[in-house]
Amino acid sequence: MTLQKLTLVACAAVIGISFTAPAMADADGEIKYRKSVMKSVGGQIGAIITILKGQTGNAANLAIHTQGLVNLSKISGSIFPEGSDFGETEALPAIWEKPGQFSKAVKMFQDAADKMNAAAMSGDMAAAGAAFGGVGKSCKNCHENFREKKQ
Amino acid sequence: MTLQKLTLVACAAVIGISFTAPAMADADGEIKYRKSVMKSVGGQIGAIITILKGQTGNAANLAIHTQGLVNLSKISGSIFPEGSDFGETEALPAIWEKPGQFSKAVKMFQDAADKMNAAAMSGDMAAAGAAFGGVGKSCKNCHENFREKKQ
Repeated sequence: MTLQKLTLVACAAVIGISFTAPAMADADGEIKYRKSVMKSVGGQIGAIITILKGQTGNAANLAIHTQGLVNLSKISGSIFPEGSDFGETEALPAIWEKPGQFSKAVKMFQDAADKMNAAAMSGDMAAAGAAFGGVGKSCKNCHENFREKKQ
Repeated sequence: MTLQKLTLVACAAVIGISFTAPAMADADGEIKYRKSVMKSVGGQIGAIITILKGQTGNAANLAIHTQGLVNLSKISGSIFPEGSDFGETEALPAIWEKPGQFSKAVKMFQDAADKMNAAAMSGDMAAAGAAFGGVGKSCKNCHENFREKKQ
């Protein structure tokens, strides 16, 4: 264990976090991480929808959310590591069986988020609203092909 | 209604979003917005915790999450507009009755998120782990003083 890791473990102990040492990924942990990232994505999407619907006076925050979505989209490919398909997950084996198709789905999300963010950053609410359609399609595409159907 | 707003409404109609026209904030909408923002905060915190616990191989994503937290902290003061204290919310009247104390609580969150992000951006995992204690305290401070106790 490096000195840096040791220090991290010591600090974590102080703030009440238990470590598996050495730090190592496991399927349950990866699934927890994935769900947290997707929860944050869901929160950003929900915030964007209320803004586009005019339900909040915080329209000025739109670009904060689209930028957040872009950043989350960038890591969305990384949250499905090999071996994280066992456990409390709705992720389908197709993610790992059809990596090419899955990569395309991830890129579709990233491109759509980028496009919407560019519009939001420029202050063009109309273009941002239109671009949100692309984001919605990318969500649907991935959830339909790579996530278990809700019962 | 401005041309820009009209265009937004038209685009939104195309992508299937219903608008109240003219766009106007209402308590239910503000509460929806607030919950979405807090959901995203919760997702980022969850992701950060799994990374600090070493439960995911994605430690390299830490700064993405701390940066996301910083951006969400910046708007956290704006998600409690006057009048959004009626409805399906756990926000306490103290938010609007003690604005000075509430502002301090928001600033505590922002400062803690900034500090953690600076450590994460520099790649100092130990400092980031230690700074997470401050983030946790700021969450607790606000939730204890300004949110209804969970039953």
